[in-house]
Amino acid sequence: MFVKSLLDRIVDNALAEDLEGGDLTTEATVPPEARAVARAVARKDLVVCGADVFARVFSRVDPGVRVERALDEGADAKRGDVIWIAEGSARSLLMAERTALNFVQRMSGIATLARSYVRALPEGAKTRITDTRKTTPGLRVLERYAVRVGGAHNHRDTLGSAVMIKDNHIQAAGGIALAVERARARAPHTSKIEVEVASLAELDQALAAGADIVMLDNFAPADVAVGVAKARGKALVEVSGGITLERIAELARAGVDVISSGALTHSAPSADIALDLERLG
Amino acid sequence: MFVKSLLDRIVDNALAEDLEGGDLTTEATVPPEARAVARAVARKDLVVCGADVFARVFSRVDPGVRVERALDEGADAKRGDVIWIAEGSARSLLMAERTALNFVQRMSGIATLARSYVRALPEGAKTRITDTRKTTPGLRVLERYAVRVGGAHNHRDTLGSAVMIKDNHIQAAGGIALAVERARARAPHTSKIEVEVASLAELDQALAAGADIVMLDNFAPADVAVGVAKARGKALVEVSGGITLERIAELARAGVDVISSGALTHSAPSADIALDLERLG
Amino acid sequence: MFVKSLLDRIVDNALAEDLEGGDLTTEATVPPEARAVARAVARKDLVVCGADVFARVFSRVDPGVRVERALDEGADAKRGDVIWIAEGSARSLLMAERTALNFVQRMSGIATLARSYVRALPEGAKTRITDTRKTTPGLRVLERYAVRVGGAHNHRDTLGSAVMIKDNHIQAAGGIALAVERARARAPHTSKIEVEVASLAELDQALAAGADIVMLDNFAPADVAVGVAKARGKALVEVSGGITLERIAELARAGVDVISSGALTHSAPSADIALDLERLG
Amino acid sequence: MFVKSLLDRIVDNALAEDLEGGDLTTEATVPPEARAVARAVARKDLVVCGADVFARVFSRVDPGVRVERALDEGADAKRGDVIWIAEGSARSLLMAERTALNFVQRMSGIATLARSYVRALPEGAKTRITDTRKTTPGLRVLERYAVRVGGAHNHRDTLGSAVMIKDNHIQAAGGIALAVERARARAPHTSKIEVEVASLAELDQALAAGADIVMLDNFAPADVAVGVAKARGKALVEVSGGITLERIAELARAGVDVISSGALTHSAPSADIALDLERLG
Amino acid sequence: MFVKSLLDRIVDNALAEDLEGGDLTTEATVPPEARAVARAVARKDLVVCGADVFARVFSRVDPGVRVERALDEGADAKRGDVIWIAEGSARSLLMAERTALNFVQRMSGIATLARSYVRALPEGAKTRITDTRKTTPGLRVLERYAVRVGGAHNHRDTLGSAVMIKDNHIQAAGGIALAVERARARAPHTSKIEVEVASLAELDQALAAGADIVMLDNFAPADVAVGVAKARGKALVEVSGGITLERIAELARAGVDVISSGALTHSAPSADIALDLERLG
Amino acid sequence: MFVKSLLDRIVDNALAEDLEGGDLTTEATVPPEARAVARAVARKDLVVCGADVFARVFSRVDPGVRVERALDEGADAKRGDVIWIAEGSARSLLMAERTALNFVQRMSGIATLARSYVRALPEGAKTRITDTRKTTPGLRVLERYAVRVGGAHNHRDTLGSAVMIKDNHIQAAGGIALAVERARARAPHTSKIEVEVASLAELDQALAAGADIVMLDNFAPADVAVGVAKARGKALVEVSGGITLERIAELARAGVDVISSGALTHSAPSADIALDLERLG
Repeated sequence: MFVKSLLDRIVDNALAEDLEGGDLTTEATVPPEARAVARAVARKDLVVCGADVFARVFSRVDPGVRVERALDEGADAKRGDVIWIAEGSARSLLMAERTALNFVQRMSGIATLARSYVRALPEGAKTRITDTRKTTPGLRVLERYAVRVGGAHNHRDTLGSAVMIKDNHIQAAGGIALAVERARARAPHTSKIEVEVASLAELDQALAAGADIVMLDNFAPADVAVGVAKARGKALVEVSGGITLERIAELARAGVDVISSGALTHSAPSADIALDLERLG
Repeated sequence: MFVKSLLDRIVDNALAEDLEGGDLTTEATVPPEARAVARAVARKDLVVCGADVFARVFSRVDPGVRVERALDEGADAKRGDVIWIAEGSARSLLMAERTALNFVQRMSGIATLARSYVRALPEGAKTRITDTRKTTPGLRVLERYAVRVGGAHNHRDTLGSAVMIKDNHIQAAGGIALAVERARARAPHTSKIEVEVASLAELDQALAAGADIVMLDNFAPADVAVGVAKARGKALVEVSGGITLERIAELARAGVDVISSGALTHSAPSADIALDLERLG
Repeated sequence: MFVKSLLDRIVDNALAEDLEGGDLTTEATVPPEARAVARAVARKDLVVCGADVFARVFSRVDPGVRVERALDEGADAKRGDVIWIAEGSARSLLMAERTALNFVQRMSGIATLARSYVRALPEGAKTRITDTRKTTPGLRVLERYAVRVGGAHNHRDTLGSAVMIKDNHIQAAGGIALAVERARARAPHTSKIEVEVASLAELDQALAAGADIVMLDNFAPADVAVGVAKARGKALVEVSGGITLERIAELARAGVDVISSGALTHSAPSADIALDLERLG
Repeated sequence: MFVKSLLDRIVDNALAEDLEGGDLTTEATVPPEARAVARAVARKDLVVCGADVFARVFSRVDPGVRVERALDEGADAKRGDVIWIAEGSARSLLMAERTALNFVQRMSGIATLARSYVRALPEGAKTRITDTRKTTPGLRVLERYAVRVGGAHNHRDTLGSAVMIKDNHIQAAGGIALAVERARARAPHTSKIEVEVASLAELDQALAAGADIVMLDNFAPADVAVGVAKARGKALVEVSGGITLERIAELARAGVDVISSGALTHSAPSADIALDLERLG
Repeated sequence: MFVKSLLDRIVDNALAEDLEGGDLTTEATVPPEARAVARAVARKDLVVCGADVFARVFSRVDPGVRVERALDEGADAKRGDVIWIAEGSARSLLMAERTALNFVQRMSGIATLARSYVRALPEGAKTRITDTRKTTPGLRVLERYAVRVGGAHNHRDTLGSAVMIKDNHIQAAGGIALAVERARARAPHTSKIEVEVASLAELDQALAAGADIVMLDNFAPADVAVGVAKARGKALVEVSGGITLERIAELARAGVDVISSGALTHSAPSADIALDLERLG
Repeated sequence: MFVKSLLDRIVDNALAEDLEGGDLTTEATVPPEARAVARAVARKDLVVCGADVFARVFSRVDPGVRVERALDEGADAKRGDVIWIAEGSARSLLMAERTALNFVQRMSGIATLARSYVRALPEGAKTRITDTRKTTPGLRVLERYAVRVGGAHNHRDTLGSAVMIKDNHIQAAGGIALAVERARARAPHTSKIEVEVASLAELDQALAAGADIVMLDNFAPADVAVGVAKARGKALVEVSGGITLERIAELARAGVDVISSGALTHSAPSADIALDLERLG
C-alpha cells in the first residue's frame, strides 16, 4: 500500500512531463463524450506489479476513470493475460496510457527479474536476495516495492536508515575498529552496522569490531566459504558484486545470508505490457 | 545545456530520496574538515554522458565541491578511463556519490546503447534512429538528451508536440482520412502529422490523406520495402516494433527514414561507472 | 479537458496567494453553517471560457461545493446571462470568489478577443488566426485553451515543440540555408521548420532551403501578396507583427495561411463577470 | 526588492512552461561557445519595471549571464531607449528571451498604466490611486510591485490582511452594525475595517458603526460629494467601480481619499519591449 | 475552516517526513485486510483543537478512512475523554497515527495555553490576548488558528499585513515622526500603523505622529498605567515582553487593550493525546 | 552539515509564510542602500544550535548578506554572548530576522534541553538519551540535529528505518513471537527489531523471540531493574514514558541502555535569542 499523497507526487510529476501541452491527437480526433474500456495485457510472461500506480495515473488525469484488477499484485501473468481494466472517457484513457505503462512496465520488469533471482535459490535456502540503493532517481519507493513483490527483499532504504561502512569510511576513520566504534557511538541504537570488506583479513577485523553484518565485496568463491565459516554466529554475511543468476545457487549453498544486486533495479528490462482499447457504445 | 532551474528540480528530488535523514555512516566516521578528490572511472567501455548532472548533484549537496571533466560529453571511454573529477569536503563527496552515479550510469547506459544502434547503420545511410515516449517517469529530459549524446535522434517530446494518429484515434474518428483531416484542422500548423499503419492498405489511406509521416508498425521486411516505395516523395517512413541491433542495417538499406525504438530508453543496461575516492592532505 | 493534476497545480498556487492567511471578513461575519448559491453573471457580452477552472477553484477550497454550467464552454453570453452556478457553504463561496473570477475573466477575455479576430475573417477564408508564446507566465496552458475556445488556433507550444528560426539563429548559423540544414539534421522528424523572414530576398532563401513555414515579419501589404505567390505550393505563409482587427480581412484575402498575434494573449482586456450570491434557507 | 527564494518560485515555474523540452532551434543552430549581448529596448514610451525579474530569468537559465541596468526602475523610457543589457552565452540569452520579456512587458505595462492614472490627478491632490485583488493568478506580488513603481498604491494584499465588508457579509451578519461589530471583535487589532456601501443610507450606517474606511461603490458624482462630506473626520473614503482616466481628476477634486481600480492590473496592455541580440567575438 | 489545498500542502509535507520509506513494522505484522477503530483520547485536561487536520492526515494516507468528532473544536476535554474517532484499514490508521498526533498535540497545546491566558483576565475585561509572529516555521496558519480556538486573538499575520515600526525602523528613518509619516505615505490605506516604544518619551512621539497602535515594550507596571492614560482616545495600547500568566490580570486592570505573547506559540507544551486502537471483526 | 537543497526547501517554505506580501514597514522606512550589521545575542544561557539555518535564511532572502559565527555550534552560550553576526543590506536583515530567529530559537531550545538531560546522567554512565518521532511536522531533520548538538542521540528516523513492534502490532500479528518472526522475515536485514513491552511477562516473550531491543513502557522502577537483569546480554534495554530530568540518573544507575523522551522535541521551551541591529556608515 502506498501513502496516497506520496504516490500523487510521483504520478503528477510524470503526467506533467507528457501532458503539459495537452494531447494534440486525442483532442483533435476523439469526441469528448466517447467512452472506452482499456485492458492492460501481458505481451510476454511477467510478474504483475504496479496496480495502485496504474490506477492512480488514470485517476489523476480524470477522477471519473474506474480501474479494476484482473490479476493480483505479484501474480505470474502469462502472455496474453489481461492484468488490469480501466473504463471511462476515451480521451482520458488515451492521455494517461503512456505514462501508466511507463510506470508498470518498469515495476513489473523489476518484479519479474527479482522473482527469477529468488527462484534460482535452492529449495529451502534461507538466503535472501536484496536490492541496493542503485535505483532510478525519483522512483526508489516504487522500485523497492517491486523488488518485494517479486519475492526478494530490500536493503537499507537511505543513507539515514542504517550504517554501512565502506573503504572510504574506514580510511577516513583510521581503520575498521575505529570506524565501527564511532558508528556505534553515534548512530541510532536501532540501526545495524554493516562493514564492507575486501579480504579475509578485513573480515577478521570487522568481526572483531563487532559488526552486525559483513559484506564480502567481490570475494572469490573459495573465500566466500571461508568467510561464512568465520562469521557464523557473529554476524550476518552479505555478498555483493557481479551477482548473476548463475551464481545465486552456489552462493546460497555456501551459506551466505544475503545476496545483494544492483542489477535488480538498474538493469531490469522493461516488462512488455500493452493497453488494448475498445470503444463503448 | 540544461536550464539550471529545471535540472535542480530533478536533482533535488533525487537527493531528498537518499539523504532526507542524513548519512549516518559518513557523519559518524568522516571528520567534517577532511577533504578528498573523487574520480569517476569507467569500469567498462561506455559513451560518456551526464557531466552537467554529475556536477549539479555535488553542488546541490555542497556548493563548495568543484567538478572538472576529464573526458568530453559523448566521448568513447575505455575501461579504466577517468571521466570526471570532483574535489571538496570528503563528507559531501560521500553523501552525493550514489545519487550522482545513479544518474550518470543511466544516462551513459542509454548513450552507449544509442551509439551501438547508430553504428549498426550502413556507411552513408540517411536513416535516423530515434527514441520514443517510453522513458522513465520523471527523467524524460535527461534520457532524451542521452539519446542525442549517443548520436541518435529524438522523436516527439510530448503528446502536445506533434500529432501521432494510432489505431484508437482512427477508430474514434471513423477512418484514417477523417482523423488526418481533423488533426490538420485543429493541431498547430507547426506540428507534423504522423499516422501509424498496420497494413499496406492503411498505408495507402494515410498517404492519400496527406500524412507527413507514416509509421509502419511491425511490418514484415518485404512489406517495409513496398511501403518505402509507396511513400517515396510523399511522406517520411518510420518503422517501429521489435527493433533489434540486427535489423537496423536491413531496415536502413530498405530506405526507411526513421527507426524508432523504445528499448533505447526503457531497457538500456546501466553503464558501469565507479567513484574512486582519495583523501587529500 | 484539463489533466486534473496539472490544473490543481495552477489553482492551488493561486489560492495560496489570496488565502494563506485565511479570510478575516468572512470568518468574522458569516456563520459556518450558512449555505448559499452563487451565480456567475456576464456584465457585458462575452465568450464563455473557463468552466473547469471555475469549478476546480471552488472544489480545492471546499470539495463540498457543487458547480453547474448554465452556458456551454464557448457560448456567446449576452450581458446579464448566468454562466455558471455554484452552491455550498457561504464561507467557501466567498473565499473562492475572487480567485475563481480572476481566472475566468482572463480566460473569457482572451476567448472573446480571439472570436472577434476570427469573425473578422472573410466568409470562407481558410486563413487561421493563432496565438504566440507571448502568454502570461504560469498560465500558458489556460490561455492557449482560451484561444481555441474563441475559435482561433495555437502556434507552437514551447521552444521544444517546433523549430522557428529567427534572425539571431540565422546570424549564428551563418545564413538561412545553413540554419535550416542544421535544424533539419537535429530536430525531431516530427517538428516542422519555420523561418522568420524580413524581406522578399530572405523569403527566397527560406523557400530554397525547404522551410515548411515562412513567417513574413512586418511585411508591407504589397510584399505580403508577392510573398504568398512565391510560397504557394512550397510552404505555409504566416504573417505576424502589428496585427489589428482591421488588417485581418485584408491579409486573409491576400491568401496568407496563418496570422499570428501576441495581443490575443498579452493584451486581451478582462471579461466582465460578477458573482451574485444568494443566501439559502 | 524581492525575496530571492520567492522570486525563484515564480521564475522557475515560468521557465518550465517554455523550456521543459529544451529549445530545438537554438540547440540546432547556435554553437555552444557563441557569446552575445542582448539589449532590452523600449519600442514605445513606457515606465520601466521588472529589472530584478528580468535578471533572475537569465540567471536561472544560466548563472553565467550578467545583467546590467541602463535605466532605473521606474524611469520614463522613450521609444528606442535601451533599458537593460544582458551578456553571456548566446544560447542562454535566446532560451531565456521570451520568458524574460513576458514578465517585464506585463510589469512595465502595469507601471505605465498606473503612472498615467497618477498623472491624471490634479496638482497637489492627496488622493491615492490603488490596485485591487483583481490580479493575474500567480503573479500578484509582481503586479502589486508594478503598481507601486508606477506611483500608485496597493490595496490590501490578501483576504487575510484587512477586513472588507461587502453586501454578502452584511446580509450574512444581519446588517452593517452587526457585521462591523463582529469584525472588530474577531479580526486582528492591526487590521482596519472597510465597509463597501451602495447608498448614502448605508454610508450612514457604516459611519455610525465606526468603519475605518468606507467604499462608495458605483456612486453617482453628486453622491460622492455628499459621501465625502459625511465621512470627513470619521473615515477614509474610497471610490471604486467604473474608474476611467477621465473621472480621476473629478473624483480627486471631490475629495475622495482613495480611488481603486481593477483595470490597473487586469486590463493593462502589455508594454512593447524587444530584445536586440548582437553576437560577440 | 481551512482551504483544503493549503492544508494538503502542510499535511503532505509531514507525511513525507515519516513515511517516505513506508512503515516496516506495520507492513510486516498487520494483514492488509485488517480493519480497526482508533480513538484519540485526552490523557490530561486540554482544549480540543485540530479536528480538520487530524482527519486530513488520515485521508491523505488513505481516502478510505472515516473520521468523526466526539468533541467539538474548542471544547474543554477532561482526562480520559474521547475526542475523535477514526475507522478504516488498520494499516492506514497505524501509518498515520504519529503524524496526526504530532499535529494535534501541538495545536491543542497552544489552544490550551491560550485559554489559560484568556481565563486569567478579570471578569468583563476588554483586553485581548494575542499571539505574535514567533510561530513554528511552516505551521503559522495552524498555530494562529489554535490561538483563536483557545479564545485569544491573532496579531498581524505577516510582514505584509500591517505596519509595525520598531527601533531599527525608527533609527533608519531618522525618528518616530518621520517613520510614521513614511509608513502612512506608502503602506496600504487598509493597514494600521503600530509603533513599538521603549519609553514614555517615545510614546509621546508616537502618539503625536498619529500611530494607530502603540506597543509598550517591557514597560514597568507604573509606566504602563501612565502610558494607558496618555494613549486613551488616541491609540490602542499593546503591551509585550515578559508576559506571564500572573501579570495578565494586572495588565488588564491597567486598561491595556492588547497583551501579546510569543510564548503562546513558541513555548506551549504539547497536549497529551493518545490514540487507542481496537481491531474490528 | 545539511544537504543544501533539502535545507532550502524548509527555509523557502518558512520565508514564504512571512514575506509573500513583502515587508510593509521596512520598505517604507529603510532606504534600499542602507547597510547594517546584525548580532544574534543570547538573552539567557543556552546551547548554540542552527548556524547553517540562520545563515541560509539570510542568503535566501538576499545572497549578498554575509554571516559569521562568533560561537561554535554546540557551544554553551552565556547570557549576553554574541552567537552569529550577519552583515549586509539593512532591509534584507530586517526582512529575514524573524524567520531566522524562529528557527534557531527552536533548535537552540531543543539543544539546551537535550544537554540538560545528558548532564543529568551520572559520571561515566553508558546510557544514552534519545529523541522520538514526536517532532514538529516539517522540521524533523532540524530537530533531530538539535538533539545531537545537545549531546543526546537520535532514535529511528522514520517508520521505514527500523522495526518497532507495539501493542497494536502484537495484537494484529497474534502475539509477540509471531510479530517478531514476521518482522524478521520481511524487514531489511539492516534494521534492528525493537519490541515495546508493558510487563515483565511480555519482556520474557520479547527476549525469547530474539528482539534486538526491548522498550519498557512506563515500568515501575523496581521492574526496570528486573527487566535490565533479564535482558542483559540478550537485548538493549530502552525505557520510555514519563521521563523527567529527575528520573534520568536513577534509570541510568539501573543500567538501562537508552532513555527516550518525546518531550525533548515536542515540549522544549524556545531559547531566548535576540537580533541587535546596528546601522553601518
